[in-house]
Amino acid sequence: MKGLQILKFNKSALSSSIRSISTSQTFNNKKNVAIVLSGCGIYDGSEVLETTSAMIHLSKNDANCSLFAPNIEQFHVINHLTGQVSPETRNVLEESARIARGNIQALEKLKASDYHALVFPGGFGAAKNLSNYATQGTKMTVDKEIERVVDEFIVASKPIGFICISPVLAAKLIPGVELTEGKRDQKNWPYAEAIENIALMGAKPIEKDTPEVHIDYKFKVISTPAFMKHSATPVEVFDGIGNLISNLLRLI
Amino acid sequence: MKGLQILKFNKSALSSSIRSISTSQTFNNKKNVAIVLSGCGIYDGSEVLETTSAMIHLSKNDANCSLFAPNIEQFHVINHLTGQVSPETRNVLEESARIARGNIQALEKLKASDYHALVFPGGFGAAKNLSNYATQGTKMTVDKEIERVVDEFIVASKPIGFICISPVLAAKLIPGVELTEGKRDQKNWPYAEAIENIALMGAKPIEKDTPEVHIDYKFKVISTPAFMKHSATPVEVFDGIGNLISNLLRLI
Repeated sequence: MKGLQILKFNKSALSSSIRSISTSQTFNNKKNVAIVLSGCGIYDGSEVLETTSAMIHLSKNDANCSLFAPNIEQFHVINHLTGQVSPETRNVLEESARIARGNIQALEKLKASDYHALVFPGGFGAAKNLSNYATQGTKMTVDKEIERVVDEFIVASKPIGFICISPVLAAKLIPGVELTEGKRDQKNWPYAEAIENIALMGAKPIEKDTPEVHIDYKFKVISTPAFMKHSATPVEVFDGIGNLISNLLRLI
Repeated sequence: MKGLQILKFNKSALSSSIRSISTSQTFNNKKNVAIVLSGCGIYDGSEVLETTSAMIHLSKNDANCSLFAPNIEQFHVINHLTGQVSPETRNVLEESARIARGNIQALEKLKASDYHALVFPGGFGAAKNLSNYATQGTKMTVDKEIERVVDEFIVASKPIGFICISPVLAAKLIPGVELTEGKRDQKNWPYAEAIENIALMGAKPIEKDTPEVHIDYKFKVISTPAFMKHSATPVEVFDGIGNLISNLLRLI
């Protein structure tokens, strides 16, 4: 049946891939979840394994997954081999499309009324493109479209998941929210100062390990530290995000 | 201060990430598996979800995973939002480093003697950067370093996994090998001509669905069609690659 739906769109690799992830446009009984990306690659965009882990767990739980990203220039481009800033410019939406297999929409098209829940993967893109936390710390500001989208989901009492470093967005936008941001042990958690920073911004940090999540039931906000722990293995990150997704769907 | 903060962020991120995936350099009792990437993004590099699925399943099976890619220019750059060729140039190793979190080495450093098994994810990079199958079809040639690496693993009787479109490399390099390349039903398998092409190159195509694998016990070659099926869901691709990884480790 699914195959039949896809038939008519089978014109090219791109169009076929657009059907391959399943979309929210097919209004059925499935839960529709939006994921907001910030590029492609941990140092200037979305963390790739965290993002695909969310996509796989949504698929495993038979939920639809629709991907969005802001149509803006990246803060900068990092050569992921050397860690150095590259002189080129790249667009957040175009680079996010690499993870999405082309099946992605501009962030302004995302309305809370069309989805049951929202997810933000980690990666420095959340701190460089969706906000300026990477340079401004507690004086950060958040992209206006991100602010609009988070506000819409909070007002509608629809659950939101924040992975890895992305809880800094929640700390800024949702005063008093309880969030994971890793642990204070700096040997294993190289970004431990983020815990103090989200507290300074008014959030309540809850120390959790990578496979764990914390749920703020008041705001329906779920978070997990993922690769905030530098010894985190891919399967620990995958399992933590699985935990986040199953709780997110449960709260719908 | 602004620059310094970013530098500090990146430096610690890069060094921590190098530990995060676990490496073959830590000689222990674990099985060491090499994955060869071809860029970052389905249309001009490695398929992102296929690659991370292999990483997660290796981690789940407590095997070490080391990533490699050729240090060459991409055949071209595809804007994954529009599907159009972009005028810029990108380097395969640098772009692959986005999936690898910076923890990747140039392909010439990969020796079969250091690893128990080898994996090639899919994505058009296998057909554009690791070979020229995308433009030459059955008259394709394979990158010389890819040929050397595959030959070394075959001679050493060490297992190799080929995902999605990457079995075209095996078809060219391993005469008579049995391989998956999807099914002949063009409605659900938009690249079905690849089946005839690998047969013309001397391989034996075995029709399998996305969650399945085929094992050629003579050559210790395992393959799975993954996103060759255009209706394949993320979890079906993930499970097929899990099947491939568990069989790969079993054959070591």
